Amino acid sequence: MIYLDNAASTQVDEKVIEEMLPYFKEQFGNPSSIHKYGRLAFMAVQNARKRIASLINAEPAEILLTSGGTESNNTALYGIANKKKGKHVVTSSIEHDAILEPCKRLERDGFQVTYLPVDMYGLVNPEDVKKIISSDTCLISIMVANNEVGTIQPIKEICKIAHEKSIPMHTDAVQAVGKIPIDVKDLDVDLLSISSHKINGPKGIGALYIKKGTELNPMILGGGQENGLRSGTENVPNIVGFGKACQLAKDNLKQNANHFRILSTKLRSRVLQEIPYVTVNGHLEKRIPNNSHFTFLGVNGEDLIIKLDENDVAASTGSACSVRTQKASHVLKAMGFSHEQITGSLRLTTGVSNTEKEIDDAVEILKKVVNELRAVSPYKEKYNF
Amino acid sequence: MIYLDNAASTQVDEKVIEEMLPYFKEQFGNPSSIHKYGRLAFMAVQNARKRIASLINAEPAEILLTSGGTESNNTALYGIANKKKGKHVVTSSIEHDAILEPCKRLERDGFQVTYLPVDMYGLVNPEDVKKIISSDTCLISIMVANNEVGTIQPIKEICKIAHEKSIPMHTDAVQAVGKIPIDVKDLDVDLLSISSHKINGPKGIGALYIKKGTELNPMILGGGQENGLRSGTENVPNIVGFGKACQLAKDNLKQNANHFRILSTKLRSRVLQEIPYVTVNGHLEKRIPNNSHFTFLGVNGEDLIIKLDENDVAASTGSACSVRTQKASHVLKAMGFSHEQITGSLRLTTGVSNTEKEIDDAVEILKKVVNELRAVSPYKEKYNF
Repeated sequence: MIYLDNAASTQVDEKVIEEMLPYFKEQFGNPSSIHKYGRLAFMAVQNARKRIASLINAEPAEILLTSGGTESNNTALYGIANKKKGKHVVTSSIEHDAILEPCKRLERDGFQVTYLPVDMYGLVNPEDVKKIISSDTCLISIMVANNEVGTIQPIKEICKIAHEKSIPMHTDAVQAVGKIPIDVKDLDVDLLSISSHKINGPKGIGALYIKKGTELNPMILGGGQENGLRSGTENVPNIVGFGKACQLAKDNLKQNANHFRILSTKLRSRVLQEIPYVTVNGHLEKRIPNNSHFTFLGVNGEDLIIKLDENDVAASTGSACSVRTQKASHVLKAMGFSHEQITGSLRLTTGVSNTEKEIDDAVEILKKVVNELRAVSPYKEKYNF
Repeated sequence: MIYLDNAASTQVDEKVIEEMLPYFKEQFGNPSSIHKYGRLAFMAVQNARKRIASLINAEPAEILLTSGGTESNNTALYGIANKKKGKHVVTSSIEHDAILEPCKRLERDGFQVTYLPVDMYGLVNPEDVKKIISSDTCLISIMVANNEVGTIQPIKEICKIAHEKSIPMHTDAVQAVGKIPIDVKDLDVDLLSISSHKINGPKGIGALYIKKGTELNPMILGGGQENGLRSGTENVPNIVGFGKACQLAKDNLKQNANHFRILSTKLRSRVLQEIPYVTVNGHLEKRIPNNSHFTFLGVNGEDLIIKLDENDVAASTGSACSVRTQKASHVLKAMGFSHEQITGSLRLTTGVSNTEKEIDDAVEILKKVVNELRAVSPYKEKYNF
């Protein structure tokens, strides 16, 4: 099977599993316990925290460990909005549901939320941010890279605009870390979400970077772990695994990004050359190197995924998290796509273990499958397939 | 090292790790993905859900997967309190901080919370529940078994009282599952929290039983996983491990409980016979079989833990989660203990891999260590040690 859905989840690195195992079997203590088992677990968490911080050039004390990217995003939004005085939140119309759904709740709680538009490449215009913010704006949350089309936003520029008005800025970097350099000091962002299972670490663990001095309300209360900001016994093995994954992502960033770029470039150029009526979506340069997003006109994306699956290629129409709701992509809608363009979409995301041979094989399968589907397409005559 | 802190965390069972491993390496898909990787992950989650449900005699659809016991408790409290009309919550004064801290937040949010007293054994009187509830009561939350002294509450009786007034009842069963039979239908409880790492499963995963028809607001929003009640990519390997741990806990319940009872009974009777000025705390019969809680007069519990640790015995003064705050046990305070009694407390909790030999060795070490500490105790003359 050729796995080209690395934006949905990734294989856990063998070195990551190796580092996790002792924390299931031998060093299984609760980090809050004062005996040796507890101290070893505590030290393991602190060591992992350093590695996680290092990946994004943060201080270890600025890393809040969570159960994943979704909890990080929820914590940032509720934690800041309910702490600050203002009642206006700014976000974009192409955020992940883990931002949009908490924003809808904030609206029900009396906040006003602005969902900024994007252009046809999925880019937010920083001028729009400047125009909309006011003294009532308590938070801006705009993602680094989009999970469907991979477009990279001008976060540094937006942070500058936010800070001119002393507004805290959060960014969802779940799809960006491990693909492009993420430096919280350079971006000058106040809060940033990351997830372990998108960078060959285990699922169920993530982090929220919280710039020193930024105050927020905790969401989960109890034993006071994580400096009172996130209670619950620390998930030690997964934290250790996340730490290792971050270290590997940092050490291999250039090499991995280059690998992703070579494979994705080959994929896009072969598809564009060898299959008619296809477009590549998202921005051509401002995109994370592992993402390729296509529209195959006259083809239903879901049928395409199923046919590809039957032919041993794992792919996605867009966000894995939206499958359940079966709703048309809000990202492509915001980019101005027609119903037909949205319907024919396919996301292929490369990972560290993909090979050039796999890309070549996937293209051949894709050609075959697209042909088969177009032969029975209701758009057959329109395009003269 | 003799590990007698199984109430804080347990060693992950070898069989649990074995079942988890393929979900890191091979079946690493996102359960929301529609391709084969996704479907295998989804089926693994559903299979684990059945095993988790089975342990407590629930239906799989009644199991909400969370990141652990603390999140389960938070979800139950906020989820119900913010959904119902009433503004009065009833709990006990000896709950875990994962109940008490959310209750304090509810107070700040305008709720009235009653913290019921307990007797000297740590027992809540159901009559007290009957007296305090009113048409404004929206939730009762009382734990099955206390995490410090192990006392088992009359949950079934309290549920009956709650339901006579149509008040939903939640119980924190984190310390009780795997130690005594827990049957949600027999208890007739509406919500029940459990945690994986207390029953030889992995950390970072837990569940909230939600009786069919019980409505509550979700805490974490996003992709709509867990029927919209808990968003975020499912922690597949840990869910699988939790499922296996539940299956083992169910299959071995009688045998494990008997093992815990034999070891703990031996421990308590030897300590009572061989060390002077010591009491066993909690209820003698209504207690989970793995818990022994002592007061050694004239000894500081923290010094005792440290000395035991130096002599290769891992123990606790009470709740691991309270170490950070360094505050005196609210449980023992509520039971009417004096400062001196609270100070001298020690919790020893047995687990599946402890042996009788370890208990004998631990008693010898305890005798030695208590003697050493009493020789330099400020209470030396009072008790004529």
